[in-house]
Amino acid sequence: MRAEIIAVGSEMLTPFRQDTNSLYLTEQLNGIGVVVRFKTIVGDRRRDLVSAILAALSRVDIVILMGGLGPTEDDLTRECVAEALGIGLHRDASQVAALHARAAAWRIPMPQNNLKQADLLEGAILLPNSMGSAPGQWLDTVHNTYRKLLVLVPGPPHECKPLFDAECMPRLREIVPPRSIATRTLKASMIPESQADKMLAPIYTTYTDVETTILAHAGDLQLTLQCTKPTMQEAEDRVDELAGRMEETLEEWLYSSGGDSLEQIVLYYLGLRQSTLAVAESCTGGLISERITGVPGSSRSFLGGAVVYSDALKMAFAGVQADLIAQHGAVSEEVARALANGIRLRTGATIGLGVTGIAGPSGGTEDKPVGLVCFAVSDSQKTETMQRTFRGDRKRIREWASQQALDLVRRRLM
Amino acid sequence: MRAEIIAVGSEMLTPFRQDTNSLYLTEQLNGIGVVVRFKTIVGDRRRDLVSAILAALSRVDIVILMGGLGPTEDDLTRECVAEALGIGLHRDASQVAALHARAAAWRIPMPQNNLKQADLLEGAILLPNSMGSAPGQWLDTVHNTYRKLLVLVPGPPHECKPLFDAECMPRLREIVPPRSIATRTLKASMIPESQADKMLAPIYTTYTDVETTILAHAGDLQLTLQCTKPTMQEAEDRVDELAGRMEETLEEWLYSSGGDSLEQIVLYYLGLRQSTLAVAESCTGGLISERITGVPGSSRSFLGGAVVYSDALKMAFAGVQADLIAQHGAVSEEVARALANGIRLRTGATIGLGVTGIAGPSGGTEDKPVGLVCFAVSDSQKTETMQRTFRGDRKRIREWASQQALDLVRRRLM
Repeated sequence: MRAEIIAVGSEMLTPFRQDTNSLYLTEQLNGIGVVVRFKTIVGDRRRDLVSAILAALSRVDIVILMGGLGPTEDDLTRECVAEALGIGLHRDASQVAALHARAAAWRIPMPQNNLKQADLLEGAILLPNSMGSAPGQWLDTVHNTYRKLLVLVPGPPHECKPLFDAECMPRLREIVPPRSIATRTLKASMIPESQADKMLAPIYTTYTDVETTILAHAGDLQLTLQCTKPTMQEAEDRVDELAGRMEETLEEWLYSSGGDSLEQIVLYYLGLRQSTLAVAESCTGGLISERITGVPGSSRSFLGGAVVYSDALKMAFAGVQADLIAQHGAVSEEVARALANGIRLRTGATIGLGVTGIAGPSGGTEDKPVGLVCFAVSDSQKTETMQRTFRGDRKRIREWASQQALDLVRRRLM
Repeated sequence: MRAEIIAVGSEMLTPFRQDTNSLYLTEQLNGIGVVVRFKTIVGDRRRDLVSAILAALSRVDIVILMGGLGPTEDDLTRECVAEALGIGLHRDASQVAALHARAAAWRIPMPQNNLKQADLLEGAILLPNSMGSAPGQWLDTVHNTYRKLLVLVPGPPHECKPLFDAECMPRLREIVPPRSIATRTLKASMIPESQADKMLAPIYTTYTDVETTILAHAGDLQLTLQCTKPTMQEAEDRVDELAGRMEETLEEWLYSSGGDSLEQIVLYYLGLRQSTLAVAESCTGGLISERITGVPGSSRSFLGGAVVYSDALKMAFAGVQADLIAQHGAVSEEVARALANGIRLRTGATIGLGVTGIAGPSGGTEDKPVGLVCFAVSDSQKTETMQRTFRGDRKRIREWASQQALDLVRRRLM
């Protein structure tokens, strides 16, 4: 079954606020086989909200409306659903009593407008809200000859989530045909997106029953496979089969079949090889260390390192010789090599990583443009170096460089 | 004029990803008086995308489509806009040449499917994408007798934002009726949000013609003031008056009246005082260095530092004595002091910053719980230390700690 989530509230149309409830609801819905096909964010305007509800009714089976159930003038969800469906609202006597009892218990005044929270859509079931005064509503109805389910839940996350779990999920499980969804996430590093798609599209397009999503960011490629079947075994078999073929095709670009981050994988291999890592980074300015130390437990394999932003620090912390910098320039494979070896020897790490480059926006020359980054990975046996030129702004060049650096360490450890 | 932003991509309908570009676009649009009335998130399915485009055309003047412009099978935005409007697509010869030139310049292969990025909607203007291969499109057209503007921009944030700024905003300014909107952003550090609101609400609530938005994240407080008036002078006068009263109230918590980041302000003061900074960081693992070096030109005042994740590195890179660690523990104000002094002396920086703490999730004790972080700032005159305990997960504790550390340096320099 197809669902649309409509988040109601003008504040979510400003630059400062975002709907986040829908991520939680999506997870719950996917878990029982309901696919979210659309999300709509709409403000507290009657005409706009009615238009959003009508659009949703025309294209999905389940419409979930979040927010706009409170007592203020801006809270229009009930009225707009009634208008869109052409049905009436009636004031529910037991809910009026409950609102009065709640106000009395909290010794808070009970303004007249609060009572609109007791207005129930014709044919709807009231969904009690244990965390607030606005109840939800559940309306299983027929619209233009199609069966449609409309679910109204409150907007505040601490009210929305418990109400959805307690009142909506059990009811949804009863009407959604039992299905099982299997999901797998594959990750690959430093493969161009278009190249990956050229290699993979001939495979995944033949699996029409598996939905494949490709996401790429700064050298990190994420493939999400999802399949819905009557039984979990069938769903998993299909996902596993496609994942297996993709894994073979991606070869050594693939670094994870379980959704782990590149830094988690690097730490995993370091642990496996009983190795330790230290980093001397210049243009990435701490980003590589920051990514690695973001993983809990990283201190077992990551010793630390140096952010050698100045030439003096390249010498002081990684023992780079002044004449090496003078001869080849601070951004050179030679200096990257010296950084990797120097930081390894000074820290006693098994593996040393050296990165030096020009993140921009200034500092580039014809020979050495902005985006040029030199890398070296060293252990007691050998040192490998490479250079690459990345496109984009300072942030992006640093992201690409950190990804390439971690990938070099991963490949050394594989 | 009313706008709708349609974010295209199945990944944004999963529990794992969210559209964030729209916050930036909304800010830019609001700045010229365009109100965002709807946001729609839709997956990479032809039928769904066409339905979303038709719904948007029925209710707003400006439809902005983000994403789905790449070279893969999933990228359907161009085709779906053509279908919704009933118009054709033609392959733009100059864009084909540009794609070939781009591939040649970067010495990357040019798969045939890349060429669909040169398909231009009938009557559309091509918007060059300086950061990627997929150009945007601008289509000023008539649909069902109404003038409609459709703008297609790429999805990746680093492509979307510069293209929107350079290509869309100037064109929008020409067609949107002029209004005068004054905006100011104040920033404060390490003041609790509730305390800020208690101090500021009595002031800003009296300025009913200025919209005040308060956002807080990990010790960083951002206040945005916005006022719309017939003339810019009137709008700016009101915003300036309110900003002035807020600045007085926030006193030394305020670090910026112009929207600069805390790291930009620290670098500004370092330049002003002709000072240099070096950092020895443990629990923040490179995050402080990374924040500082994210600012272009930071190499003028930031020498670098050490990520001293292990005790051995605390000794090797900042000269911390082993018995100091044995006596007080690695997480102590004493060790923070030794880190700050050690890194300052070893690098020759004017100011040294030392940070050591327990980011969790494990490693806490009754005496020293997860979230405890010790800080020290030192110059040749004196060393100041402090400790704080932050709540939250590893990521959040590290963010708070980096904010507190930068704020200590700022206060030392003021």
